[in-house]
Amino acid sequence: MKPIEEYVTSIPDFPEEGIIFRDVTSVLQDADGLHLAVDLMQEKLEGIDFDVVVGPESRGFIFGVPIAYNLRKPFIPVRKKGKLPRETVSIEYELEYGTASIEMHRDSIKPGEKVVIIDDLMATGGTTEAIVKLVEGLGGEVVKIVFLMELAGLKGRDRLGDYDLDSVIIYPGK
Amino acid sequence: MKPIEEYVTSIPDFPEEGIIFRDVTSVLQDADGLHLAVDLMQEKLEGIDFDVVVGPESRGFIFGVPIAYNLRKPFIPVRKKGKLPRETVSIEYELEYGTASIEMHRDSIKPGEKVVIIDDLMATGGTTEAIVKLVEGLGGEVVKIVFLMELAGLKGRDRLGDYDLDSVIIYPGK
Repeated sequence: MKPIEEYVTSIPDFPEEGIIFRDVTSVLQDADGLHLAVDLMQEKLEGIDFDVVVGPESRGFIFGVPIAYNLRKPFIPVRKKGKLPRETVSIEYELEYGTASIEMHRDSIKPGEKVVIIDDLMATGGTTEAIVKLVEGLGGEVVKIVFLMELAGLKGRDRLGDYDLDSVIIYPGK
Repeated sequence: MKPIEEYVTSIPDFPEEGIIFRDVTSVLQDADGLHLAVDLMQEKLEGIDFDVVVGPESRGFIFGVPIAYNLRKPFIPVRKKGKLPRETVSIEYELEYGTASIEMHRDSIKPGEKVVIIDDLMATGGTTEAIVKLVEGLGGEVVKIVFLMELAGLKGRDRLGDYDLDSVIIYPGK
């Protein structure tokens, strides 16, 4: 099997000039790539005692659910505002242009539960920081954050320095 | 373990009056529910010879990826317009109010490949019909369609009558 890096297609100037887009769909599109990505992310959880997996819409669902399935944990989706049908907690956070608002069900995390956050990619870390605040607002404890890919040049680790954070692939740039 | 139906919370009048919303997040929020849902959907694929799993953003990712992982197949995401970075094919289809447009990567299905479509819920079947057209436009053959839940009163099967379609839970109403 190839190393995981070789399954990732890099697309220059998408979605805008100067950005190199790291395409997770090229990993998924190969049965071995998908398997390896899930397994390598899951390895980062070895020895971690936790209760639930949390992942944001929509690419956080891609790796969060198979890991939850394999380790027999619940999966808690974080969704864009207005999509969750029961009582929610929400948070608004800043994007490069404008703001975004995400939600979780109020009953999805119980006080004291140990939470793992899974997503495909860390850029600035803004979405992850917002998820951490939602989880902690519900009384949960974030014990681990795992990404498939990290754009280290955007310094997401600076925002999330207090947390145990791991990425399978670290790109030095943006 | 409880029967799968008991993991589904039904929410009256969401997102609008007269609709009973069948909440898949309540299934995922329970480790046993999540496991059982994936396993029961996967059972519907026993004896089916296929090459790839296709699932639409974002709830189709929830069950499509663990099934692709377990059966060691590629997972092909169908996304809303503008989110896929490489060359795409797209289709516009009608919703109750207005239209929606979805896309797949042009190289995601090769001519002659056997395709399984996975999603959480069949309502009118409109999204699934659009996905079938995209897959067939790329030369793929839809050999099976599996849902966790089906709202039989919306008659999605009438639209998709030519296909081998199975749902784990069938609700008679809308």
